[in-house]
Amino acid sequence: MILHGYWRSSAAYRVRIALNLKGLEFSQANHDLRTGAQRAESFQALNPQGLVPALELDGEAFTQSSAIIELLDELHPEPPLLPREPQARARARAMAALIACDIHPLNNLRVLSVLRQEFGAGEDQVSHWIARWITEGFAALEPLIARHAGAFAFGDQPGIVDCHLVPQVYSAERFKVDLSPYPRLHAVADHASAHPAFAAAHPSGQPDADPA
Amino acid sequence: MILHGYWRSSAAYRVRIALNLKGLEFSQANHDLRTGAQRAESFQALNPQGLVPALELDGEAFTQSSAIIELLDELHPEPPLLPREPQARARARAMAALIACDIHPLNNLRVLSVLRQEFGAGEDQVSHWIARWITEGFAALEPLIARHAGAFAFGDQPGIVDCHLVPQVYSAERFKVDLSPYPRLHAVADHASAHPAFAAAHPSGQPDADPA
Repeated sequence: MILHGYWRSSAAYRVRIALNLKGLEFSQANHDLRTGAQRAESFQALNPQGLVPALELDGEAFTQSSAIIELLDELHPEPPLLPREPQARARARAMAALIACDIHPLNNLRVLSVLRQEFGAGEDQVSHWIARWITEGFAALEPLIARHAGAFAFGDQPGIVDCHLVPQVYSAERFKVDLSPYPRLHAVADHASAHPAFAAAHPSGQPDADPA
Repeated sequence: MILHGYWRSSAAYRVRIALNLKGLEFSQANHDLRTGAQRAESFQALNPQGLVPALELDGEAFTQSSAIIELLDELHPEPPLLPREPQARARARAMAALIACDIHPLNNLRVLSVLRQEFGAGEDQVSHWIARWITEGFAALEPLIARHAGAFAFGDQPGIVDCHLVPQVYSAERFKVDLSPYPRLHAVADHASAHPAFAAAHPSGQPDADPA
């Protein structure tokens, strides 16, 4: 099993956490998104969209972090990353999708590049853009976490919501977004970050990370 | 079952298709996103995020179209909206997520408003922005559809990919995006559009649609 990723990609980070929670062995092939390495022919052959992550499994590449996490949960049911009951599954999936659809894609590198290059956005405007979507999303997540969290974002076991939340909080902190309006969200993210599966997935510990 | 939507919302359109494919009866509560009706207190009580769609089920609101579609598929397994085999499920989910994460959120009304108001984007720039994410996404989808499609986008039965694809093609046509570079995608979307479950979900036929 080979995870194609990039140390600072939120979506690759999600998959690293899921793989660790499942206790699965994997190797990494990393592609530096800053230099456009993901557009290399060899990687495009595997994933024509040229985005990370892609999980290579028996020579075939699976893409989209949410689909990869669901696949891992179906192939390796224990420990489960989703609750068992359909309504609870839907709530957990919705919280993950709030991050995966409503926050993260707007702050992707390819989007920020367009803002800079085509809209002449300066770094202050880019930071403001990033913070806007994180704060709007976190404001919606906070009451959901308050309602559904136990020790983790959804109940007392780590799962799909935490896989999405911890990388998004890492990104928020990187961009200096004030997390004080989201105390429950911040607390469960901190708690999860200390779990060995999450700690081992942290960007700073990946083989391609910039030196600290 | 009450679907909170808006006639021209892609994400609500996806859920209408899924409900129709399952043969489920539902009523609609529509919120005009152009006037900010989704921010009304009564709707925020149901969905604090103030986004459509939300599916009210036994008095509880479920959000995020992808999570709603999976919930419908778990509560009402026939006809299935996802393939049975885990790897195939992952492929279908990834194709749906490519639309739900990599195309649609970037072209959402709330994002276009920020481009206009904070980046001073004119309508030409907004159209260019919209077309960029659709064409990038469709270029990645076309080979996946060529590989996995039968009569529909994934195999010979309508499913989760078609639920996402048809609304995205509707949006592409509305913004006059040239679909000729994506012949397989265009063909399966046309085929699905003619299916009664899709035809009945079309924006123009919804109770809150603008007069033609």
